[in-house]
Amino acid sequence: MTKRVYRFGGKSAEGNGTMRNLLGGKGANLAEMCTLGIPVPAGFTITTDCCTEYFNLGGKYPAELNDEVLSALKATEQIMEMKFGDVKDPLLVSCRSGARSSMPGMMETVLNIGLCSATIPGLIAKTNNPRFVYDAYRRLIMMYSDVVMEKAEGIEPEDGKGIRVQLDNMLHELKVAKGYKSDTDLTEDDLKGLCNDFKKKVKDVLGHDFPDDAYAQLWGGIGAVFKSWNGKRAISYRRIENIPDEWGTAVTVQSMVFGNMGENSATGVAFSRNPATGENKFYGEWLINAQGEDVVAGIRTPNPLNEATKNNQNKNLPSLETAMPTVYKELDDIQNNLEHHFSDMQDIEFTIQDGKLWMLQCRVGKRTGLAALNMAMDMLQEGLIDEKTAVLRVAPNQLDEILHPILDPKSEKEATVIAKGLPAGPGGAVGKIVFTAEAAVEAAARGEKVILVREETNPEDVEGMRAAEGLLTARGGMTSHAALVARGWGKCCIVGCEAVHFQNVEISTMLKGKNPMKIMAKQLVINGKEYNEGDIFSLNGTKGHVYDQAIKTMDASENQRFVEYMKMVDKYRVIGVRTNADNPDDAKQAMDFGAEGIGLFRIEHMFYGKNSEAPLAKLRKMIHAATIQERITALNELEPYVKNSAKATMKVMDGKPVTFRLLDPPLHEFVPQTPEKQEELAQELGITISEIKKRGESLHEVNPMMGHRGVRLGITYPEISEMQFKAIFTATAELLKEGLHPQPEIMIPVTVSVKELDFQKAICNKVHAQIQKETGIDIKYLYGTMIEIPRAALLASEMAQTAQFFSFGTNDLTQMTYGFSRDDIGAFMNDYLSNKIISADPFQTLDQSSVGKLIELGVSGGRSTNPKLKIGICGEHGGDPESVKFCHKIGMNYVSCSPFRVPIARLAAAQAAILCQN
Amino acid sequence: MTKRVYRFGGKSAEGNGTMRNLLGGKGANLAEMCTLGIPVPAGFTITTDCCTEYFNLGGKYPAELNDEVLSALKATEQIMEMKFGDVKDPLLVSCRSGARSSMPGMMETVLNIGLCSATIPGLIAKTNNPRFVYDAYRRLIMMYSDVVMEKAEGIEPEDGKGIRVQLDNMLHELKVAKGYKSDTDLTEDDLKGLCNDFKKKVKDVLGHDFPDDAYAQLWGGIGAVFKSWNGKRAISYRRIENIPDEWGTAVTVQSMVFGNMGENSATGVAFSRNPATGENKFYGEWLINAQGEDVVAGIRTPNPLNEATKNNQNKNLPSLETAMPTVYKELDDIQNNLEHHFSDMQDIEFTIQDGKLWMLQCRVGKRTGLAALNMAMDMLQEGLIDEKTAVLRVAPNQLDEILHPILDPKSEKEATVIAKGLPAGPGGAVGKIVFTAEAAVEAAARGEKVILVREETNPEDVEGMRAAEGLLTARGGMTSHAALVARGWGKCCIVGCEAVHFQNVEISTMLKGKNPMKIMAKQLVINGKEYNEGDIFSLNGTKGHVYDQAIKTMDASENQRFVEYMKMVDKYRVIGVRTNADNPDDAKQAMDFGAEGIGLFRIEHMFYGKNSEAPLAKLRKMIHAATIQERITALNELEPYVKNSAKATMKVMDGKPVTFRLLDPPLHEFVPQTPEKQEELAQELGITISEIKKRGESLHEVNPMMGHRGVRLGITYPEISEMQFKAIFTATAELLKEGLHPQPEIMIPVTVSVKELDFQKAICNKVHAQIQKETGIDIKYLYGTMIEIPRAALLASEMAQTAQFFSFGTNDLTQMTYGFSRDDIGAFMNDYLSNKIISADPFQTLDQSSVGKLIELGVSGGRSTNPKLKIGICGEHGGDPESVKFCHKIGMNYVSCSPFRVPIARLAAAQAAILCQN
Repeated sequence: MTKRVYRFGGKSAEGNGTMRNLLGGKGANLAEMCTLGIPVPAGFTITTDCCTEYFNLGGKYPAELNDEVLSALKATEQIMEMKFGDVKDPLLVSCRSGARSSMPGMMETVLNIGLCSATIPGLIAKTNNPRFVYDAYRRLIMMYSDVVMEKAEGIEPEDGKGIRVQLDNMLHELKVAKGYKSDTDLTEDDLKGLCNDFKKKVKDVLGHDFPDDAYAQLWGGIGAVFKSWNGKRAISYRRIENIPDEWGTAVTVQSMVFGNMGENSATGVAFSRNPATGENKFYGEWLINAQGEDVVAGIRTPNPLNEATKNNQNKNLPSLETAMPTVYKELDDIQNNLEHHFSDMQDIEFTIQDGKLWMLQCRVGKRTGLAALNMAMDMLQEGLIDEKTAVLRVAPNQLDEILHPILDPKSEKEATVIAKGLPAGPGGAVGKIVFTAEAAVEAAARGEKVILVREETNPEDVEGMRAAEGLLTARGGMTSHAALVARGWGKCCIVGCEAVHFQNVEISTMLKGKNPMKIMAKQLVINGKEYNEGDIFSLNGTKGHVYDQAIKTMDASENQRFVEYMKMVDKYRVIGVRTNADNPDDAKQAMDFGAEGIGLFRIEHMFYGKNSEAPLAKLRKMIHAATIQERITALNELEPYVKNSAKATMKVMDGKPVTFRLLDPPLHEFVPQTPEKQEELAQELGITISEIKKRGESLHEVNPMMGHRGVRLGITYPEISEMQFKAIFTATAELLKEGLHPQPEIMIPVTVSVKELDFQKAICNKVHAQIQKETGIDIKYLYGTMIEIPRAALLASEMAQTAQFFSFGTNDLTQMTYGFSRDDIGAFMNDYLSNKIISADPFQTLDQSSVGKLIELGVSGGRSTNPKLKIGICGEHGGDPESVKFCHKIGMNYVSCSPFRVPIARLAAAQAAILCQN
Repeated sequence: MTKRVYRFGGKSAEGNGTMRNLLGGKGANLAEMCTLGIPVPAGFTITTDCCTEYFNLGGKYPAELNDEVLSALKATEQIMEMKFGDVKDPLLVSCRSGARSSMPGMMETVLNIGLCSATIPGLIAKTNNPRFVYDAYRRLIMMYSDVVMEKAEGIEPEDGKGIRVQLDNMLHELKVAKGYKSDTDLTEDDLKGLCNDFKKKVKDVLGHDFPDDAYAQLWGGIGAVFKSWNGKRAISYRRIENIPDEWGTAVTVQSMVFGNMGENSATGVAFSRNPATGENKFYGEWLINAQGEDVVAGIRTPNPLNEATKNNQNKNLPSLETAMPTVYKELDDIQNNLEHHFSDMQDIEFTIQDGKLWMLQCRVGKRTGLAALNMAMDMLQEGLIDEKTAVLRVAPNQLDEILHPILDPKSEKEATVIAKGLPAGPGGAVGKIVFTAEAAVEAAARGEKVILVREETNPEDVEGMRAAEGLLTARGGMTSHAALVARGWGKCCIVGCEAVHFQNVEISTMLKGKNPMKIMAKQLVINGKEYNEGDIFSLNGTKGHVYDQAIKTMDASENQRFVEYMKMVDKYRVIGVRTNADNPDDAKQAMDFGAEGIGLFRIEHMFYGKNSEAPLAKLRKMIHAATIQERITALNELEPYVKNSAKATMKVMDGKPVTFRLLDPPLHEFVPQTPEKQEELAQELGITISEIKKRGESLHEVNPMMGHRGVRLGITYPEISEMQFKAIFTATAELLKEGLHPQPEIMIPVTVSVKELDFQKAICNKVHAQIQKETGIDIKYLYGTMIEIPRAALLASEMAQTAQFFSFGTNDLTQMTYGFSRDDIGAFMNDYLSNKIISADPFQTLDQSSVGKLIELGVSGGRSTNPKLKIGICGEHGGDPESVKFCHKIGMNYVSCSPFRVPIARLAAAQAAILCQN
């Protein structure tokens, strides 16, 4: 016979912690606690299979369920020494959902089941606390009418007409009428009257009486929890998280215990170690004569759990350790027991009812990145866990918190958030606000810390972005220019902060000749308040919070434990981790973070940012050349800059591979925009400004992302490729002569056909032979391609005929696969996310179902031609943990990501290796 | 033993016409003619397998080849009654290449082999024509030194240093020195001296003596032909045409015959039927005492072949029929014989040497579209071919010629081409040039025929484009706006005509108040010549030729034979052919051409062109709405226009499906650009012009092709979809009420996820229920999607959960698969084509290797979910014959193309069905 109901309580249980699939996470853990001899209010769990059965029967309970539930309820009554529905000593129960994997807030709960006109007097007599009883009753009516009588019946009221809202309004109106501030001001009579009014309203709105029978309430509750599995919210959550519909939810029916039954009662939450720091001290909060929700609601300041963890704010409040030493001792033993049993930090909820301790829940506790690191290392030393487990204990993205300076959480708590934006670059930053890149550079030169505030940023701002401590922009999404650049540098950044506006204000009037002249200046306005350059702001880039005051920062990066941890991580990692870097500073930074090479050196980055003026002028000269001869002249002048740039970075990375990607963006991006620069270029080329403008405009494109860029430039202007090959080979030859070990890899971008690779290879071969001949030095290199256009992935077996390596450019590949322009998705991405049409921004998390499919086709195609083909990934996804795991799984050789994400990728790769072994 | 050499001649042969693979096309046909008893100069063919053998041996002949060749040469000598290398009666031979499939001009030929100091005197004695002999000798030296001594040896001289160029220069210098105009002015002595000088030069440049031995020449020639198979040109041609390297070329060694040996000699080319009209009359040209190249070169006006085909130009010249009646009779019998034998029109070359007729070549002759149609129908009636063969005899693209008016070829021949552009819309057009769409509309209203000449066109020009006879633009490619629109209408169009420039000229000065005012006008300049509005131009859109004079046109569309032919074609066709049409006129046109439904009705097309002003104003009002309420108001005003547009077209297509694609382009495309329109809209909305501009600018996108368009609009603004559903269902209900049989199909564009389809379907269901309720009419429809983004193709099995049909949008799919923006490929497409990186513009011919792969994934994915899924294709490729064949092969249900391409698609589909059966 199928067993549908599993009992627990009284230090024993029919189920255990391994039975999550059948009993749900909550039911399984409650059973496990019972078998450990821990005091848990008795009850029983109806299985997930029974839920499926219920739906298969068209929303009817299987015939045998009634007997099973009644018999389990009988056992519960015996353990708790009370009786459900009893007029003298009534047992109350809760009905809670519990799925295999946590679906927070997606399904329903009903508390205080069993209160009705028959049982209320008995409970009042027993507790001698009529206010408590009527408060419990009004909570039952509010919860039950909403969950069981309305939602579970499929009633979809208009906005504001739901029963819950109407009852809430009645409660509110009563408080207003009585002049009460808080629910606790309500008296016994108030509550009693309210319960009567509530019941009338329920009948009125829903057409049925509120059930006045304990068993009717119980079955209503069980059915409502089952039905909530097929509620709209739950269904769309499952779609997004790919949870199968047939899993179903369990229902746990558990005896109610109350922490608000007097001064000998209490409730609290606790962690077996400090979840913020990882410190191995039992840590938590409790309140006397209170319910669980009072601790969470923060109406009363909670007391500290013990003396050892008191702080300035609560040092004068009583600890449980001193107030109820016996109970505290019992609790401390339990948490110790649980932590050792589960080998991980536990988050527990407890209630003390009339001096007796009850455990209501235990689960693995959430923690900060720093705490995760410390706990993993501590538990490893304590022998509680092994190395693999320690490696798996820190979520890769948590490393971000460890690597960036952050705002001191305490100081931040006391400050007021003036605006919120998207958390584009994690960490914290404090400084004077400036509104232009120039001002940022000047201030930084004076040694001042600044926050650069802009409508949006563009490549011309890069130098100012580098100089600033943090960035704040009014526009842009998580993958906007500012966000990408900031994350690349590990810089604090908030984008899409819509409260940010600029206005021009008159700051002075002075005489010039006879005419008064107005001096205008930019002014920042946030929610009506005006700010000028020089005002102090603080940014929390992890949360996207903006403050108009200085907040203390703390730096957690110089952490010896982090270094030890990462050393251990690397023991388990299989695939390589490289970095995207285009200059010696970034390369050095990435090496410090453990990068094993450069997977993406973007040649065009030398035309942005620091020291870019001279090479950019040459590039522009090349772009505006009218004849091939003019172009070659300009390229010859440009070549030494490219060579020096390549050389300096290969020198830092000595002995490690450096992948140079040839010029990628459309040339139009570099056309001078300011009159001064246009004039300069016109003089250099000996032509008119209007000719300069005309040549620039002729490069304009409707969809530049799919335009004349990447290898397409090298097909139209082979001399541009030739210059780059020459620069790379010359740099290599010079380093070899200096006794170093450069390992250049040449990568052709935006390819769609092996013929493009062949065309460029012929040029490359020619230059290679020529430089070898001139220098007499043997130059080794690899020749490969980005795979970033669907066609290249589809025809990978052909591409691998010439390419010695592939690097998947998942940014562009995602753009083409989705037909989403990264620059333009702002207009609809939020609608897509909020309507759950897509579950995540595909530019942040690789979409394995489509982009991933193309990558798999690319890998298998490439390896079918050349089994030893070296394969990597570069772009934003190279540092995304889920994507790194995907790359490991499909057999890539390496991932490449921005310097600050190198440790994250290392950890994700190690975890993937461990999980794939298991 | 492997047979390497196949003899032919003397009315018998070892090979035959079926042996193309082994003997090449030329060798097989020569053998076939011999077995038919036709006089062919004797010779032999060395097999393609021997070519492969030669390369496998590292460029050496197999040992047995020498004996085989010598023995075949002996047989040739016996038949021709001359001896190779003989001092008295020397046989001369040619060495020609011949691959399985024609590779025109890719490989080499050497003529007159066997002339050397030993044989020259004998040939002079025999012919008594020393000038002829030395002329033949200098041709041998020029050809042989180039092909055998330079190219075959892998020598790659710099430009202008090749031996052929140097010898050409010597010939030219001699003529200049002597004051000769033509090669024929050269005397015996001139040629003799030149041969000596040539031989010195050859030794000088190439370091070897010119071979003075007949056999050395022969083997040199054979080897050079073999080696030309691996010449650069041949290799890249094979890559493009996907011809395997291992096929190899055959070498045909054939006795030389000469048509320039006196007044009893002649040469000519002929067709068994008229290749221009298809008329069943033997047709050709000949010259007395001439060589084949003289006929081609056009130095002398050729004579007509017979009396029946004389025309005005050659009516006074002698026909072969009268000049050499016996030979003519023999030739006429041969052509009759050949045509019956091959069941197709033959293109033949012949030479008469000293009164004896020799056939040098026969092959299936090329023909015009009209001729192809007429020949197919004639031959069918004559019983020469069956219906299937007749269907296969007309190339689908040839129908274009039949359907469009064209310039009369004779008149065109006499006119001078003033500029060339891309042949974007076939046919011919003649009219006064105008420079603005308004002028075109006005002139057309006056009943004048005009040619609209523009830098480029945009949607605002559409009305003028419609009014014009033909279009000429300076910019744009084969898939530019002008080209697409023109082809859609079957309108003559030339784009990318770079010679076209505009300038502003002062046309008058008049007084206004006190200030003189200049009146400026646009003027067209082509190669320095100025043209004003009103000048007459003629365009040949099939060739891309522009003329500045009126040329006669002819109309071939009212052709009863065409109607009969298409009826026959449809008997064999399996897949459906629909059309892309957005108004009743186009729908009617397409029905006349045999369309079986509309596969693409673009709702946005009602905002371009005729009568668009009123709905466009409403659309703009909607776009510039600031609130959802404003937007809904505007949409309600817009809805009747959409309804009427849908209704009118469904009425024309009664009983046939009409696929409505929801609004597709980014809204920015419709923002008013002129101050007047902005002002109008500002008044309508009661806001300022600057606000209008601001709202318009906020819609600007960096890459609009991948931006906020298609279904993305319907996700952000569900009310826009709702309006369209309402319009379509209301139109359907009204037609049903009128007793008609509308069959609407609703198609969602730019989708990437089934969730988009579900989201829109929920809105559609709601509107559908509402309209059914309001009208009391049962409305049937299909709901489907475009598959035009790679992700949709990759996840087709999911898309088919909701979609009832797929229509592949191959334009966008090609854009995304290649990362090519159609609007921007002009900058590099020519470089890609000329460097043979791609073999065809993928927007014209579907790239089966990549886009086709995605389509196949889409078809199999979709059918795996729903085996009955209806699948079609719309976009440019729907009318491309190769693409239609692909669609048939992979099992699509229909193709959809512009009205004028409907017959082409019908024919291509029928041919695909016939070829797939075979």
